[in-house]
Amino acid sequence: MSKSPNWLSLREAATSIASGELTSASLVAACLERIAEREGDVGAWEYLDPDMAIEAARRLDGQVPRGALHGIPIGVKDLIDTADMPSTYGSVLYKDHRPIADAACVSAVKSAGAVVMGKTVTTEFAFFPPGKTANPVNLDYTPGGSSSGSAAAVADGMVPVAFGTQTNASVTRPAAFCGVVGYKMSFGHFSMTGIKPFSPSLDTLGMFVRTVDDLPLMRSAMLGIADAPPRDAGAPSVAVCFTPEYGEPDTACTQRIDDVARRFADAGARVGTLQLPPVFGRLLEEQEKILGFEAQQSFLYERDQGGQDVHPDFRQFLEESRAITLADYLGALDYTQACRHALAQAREDFDILLTPGVFGEAPHGRDWTGSPLFCRIWTLLHLPTISLPAGSGPNGMPMGVQLVGRANRDEDLIAAASWAEATLARHAL
Amino acid sequence: MSKSPNWLSLREAATSIASGELTSASLVAACLERIAEREGDVGAWEYLDPDMAIEAARRLDGQVPRGALHGIPIGVKDLIDTADMPSTYGSVLYKDHRPIADAACVSAVKSAGAVVMGKTVTTEFAFFPPGKTANPVNLDYTPGGSSSGSAAAVADGMVPVAFGTQTNASVTRPAAFCGVVGYKMSFGHFSMTGIKPFSPSLDTLGMFVRTVDDLPLMRSAMLGIADAPPRDAGAPSVAVCFTPEYGEPDTACTQRIDDVARRFADAGARVGTLQLPPVFGRLLEEQEKILGFEAQQSFLYERDQGGQDVHPDFRQFLEESRAITLADYLGALDYTQACRHALAQAREDFDILLTPGVFGEAPHGRDWTGSPLFCRIWTLLHLPTISLPAGSGPNGMPMGVQLVGRANRDEDLIAAASWAEATLARHAL
Repeated sequence: MSKSPNWLSLREAATSIASGELTSASLVAACLERIAEREGDVGAWEYLDPDMAIEAARRLDGQVPRGALHGIPIGVKDLIDTADMPSTYGSVLYKDHRPIADAACVSAVKSAGAVVMGKTVTTEFAFFPPGKTANPVNLDYTPGGSSSGSAAAVADGMVPVAFGTQTNASVTRPAAFCGVVGYKMSFGHFSMTGIKPFSPSLDTLGMFVRTVDDLPLMRSAMLGIADAPPRDAGAPSVAVCFTPEYGEPDTACTQRIDDVARRFADAGARVGTLQLPPVFGRLLEEQEKILGFEAQQSFLYERDQGGQDVHPDFRQFLEESRAITLADYLGALDYTQACRHALAQAREDFDILLTPGVFGEAPHGRDWTGSPLFCRIWTLLHLPTISLPAGSGPNGMPMGVQLVGRANRDEDLIAAASWAEATLARHAL
Repeated sequence: MSKSPNWLSLREAATSIASGELTSASLVAACLERIAEREGDVGAWEYLDPDMAIEAARRLDGQVPRGALHGIPIGVKDLIDTADMPSTYGSVLYKDHRPIADAACVSAVKSAGAVVMGKTVTTEFAFFPPGKTANPVNLDYTPGGSSSGSAAAVADGMVPVAFGTQTNASVTRPAAFCGVVGYKMSFGHFSMTGIKPFSPSLDTLGMFVRTVDDLPLMRSAMLGIADAPPRDAGAPSVAVCFTPEYGEPDTACTQRIDDVARRFADAGARVGTLQLPPVFGRLLEEQEKILGFEAQQSFLYERDQGGQDVHPDFRQFLEESRAITLADYLGALDYTQACRHALAQAREDFDILLTPGVFGEAPHGRDWTGSPLFCRIWTLLHLPTISLPAGSGPNGMPMGVQLVGRANRDEDLIAAASWAEATLARHAL
């Protein structure tokens, strides 16, 4: 093997374990070694029990493989319940919380043979207040949030795959800032049972990997969909979609989207542009009503019992959200449904939308995890998205582009993203 | 006061407490006395701490009223998390479970001043295996499920109000069998945070009271909607809707629906009939795909770790549900959406549908909580429903009729149900 096992992709690692070329114990040990070396700087982990991980790996090495992820270490965002590890939701209020059961996604990957490596840092309740994690590419920059630790751990070779969740931008943003692949499933493809709810109409499971090729393996393990490397469907039709309704990205970001579009066209993709239908002008405002109405119900216990253990910014958000009425909320849901239909028509000819996921490179400093504005509507619309690394920017930090698929057509999105990844790999940006 | 405080309706009790005529402590004491007298037979409670309830009531008596439910005792289905009481989900697997936080609905009523009286019996995971509860009207009959204890406790004068949940028929059925008002909210009006998920696209919060007049008070406390006794909108337009697609009710049930319709017409309601659109023929089949797909994800932990602590029938249901593919599931969701539109058009002229909620009286014996078939589609369609007591049947057991409102128009449904309740009260059935 040419690279250290901790840098293998999920698929490479799974294949090596299946062929007997690699043991789970040696893979986990390599990952733990990387963590030991880097964790003091990166701070990706909220909880880690190296002995437990090694022991689980050894146990699996002695068993007949029982699933697609046999022996694979995985990081789990600490918003997600684990019965054998603490689950703090990034909050001091939950610092001693040990749930009685694993979340459904954790059970699913364990059942497929994965080793849960530990819990990765999340911002408090997946809201803004950042955790301790630094961007592994340059420690002076934010890794993005809220799935900060998962993105950083995958980017830094600590695990080949990690779970995240997205309510606004919490997969796409850290993936772009850390330079890894961030995949947010179509809403509802996998259960959120055992994941701390924020806004259940928006909360969506996602994951980080280092190559698109790994995603079908995860979907196979979790959903029983036949695993195949992303099928080669040829060049997709691509709509470049800027969303000035929600702000202007950095010049570097705009140029990068254009560069990427040109590469796609050169490689044979039909590339057009899409303007969001006019009804989208108010969508972000409506999204905030849904988010706020649901969040203030989800966090009633924390509001009433949390006291000083709840960050003042979050408390203020909850208080302000009480002004949103049921009628506002239901109206916003209807409005969203109308936008779903309008977009499906407007994009009919385009397999994927190519659009900024973030405003540019990661912001300097670690007090702010960056703006979610370019992700909110896609999460709200329940569309599958992939944040794809696309070179680095003026500060030497990673840049990413966001690919948005058709509703519930995740396999098609993954195939298109795989084509896009290969296309960008042929000529460095 | 002419009746013992434990028999006061929620609104009567709240009014009496507000006026100083009644203390919370004396109300709670009267309820506890009733429970002490009857619990050995009825078995409504999974957990009860009389001292804690009395202490909470006394504390509230010493405070300035802070909400619409000040001093009101409430029963909470044991599928719903409480931080200061066990939460077993009706499962031996969770017998020692003490959640870290209250469910959102529990926080909401506590915040409005309610006293959580205890946890009421649920069937295992809200599935079929019954708990210990008997029908308080006649102990030889089932109380219905899965919200068995909540319906029985309200019917028996143990509390004026109790929470239930409905995934198939778990509010409507026990309400009808025990002879109380059972209200299932429009899907999504209130957070399910802290309630054990079964099928998140179906799981809906509900409640039991002894008169429709109490429902606006609960919605006011939980949703900040102005409390007013159900507004007198006059006689509603009513469609009698039998659903032969899903089975034939008992003769007594069919006749009762016809009797009720005649009373409504005599009282000035425009009464017509509605046949479900043909597309509804397959809806129950599609419902089962949604239920099964989501349940087998929701209960992955219990499937893998529950062993013999999971009832074999439930285990079998989970195993069989693994055959349902993501494509089946997504197809069923689309199918459902088409039915929502078809029904909205077909019923356009009718404020409420009058339809059986159950096949007749409660079945004899306590091994089976009764058929859910007449409720499943309404839950799936996310429509608000009220099960209204409608006299008793050939066995002397309560009968109920189901009223189905328009999507998200709960206040209109409650107003119509209030009119219906008053109409039926004028001439005993």
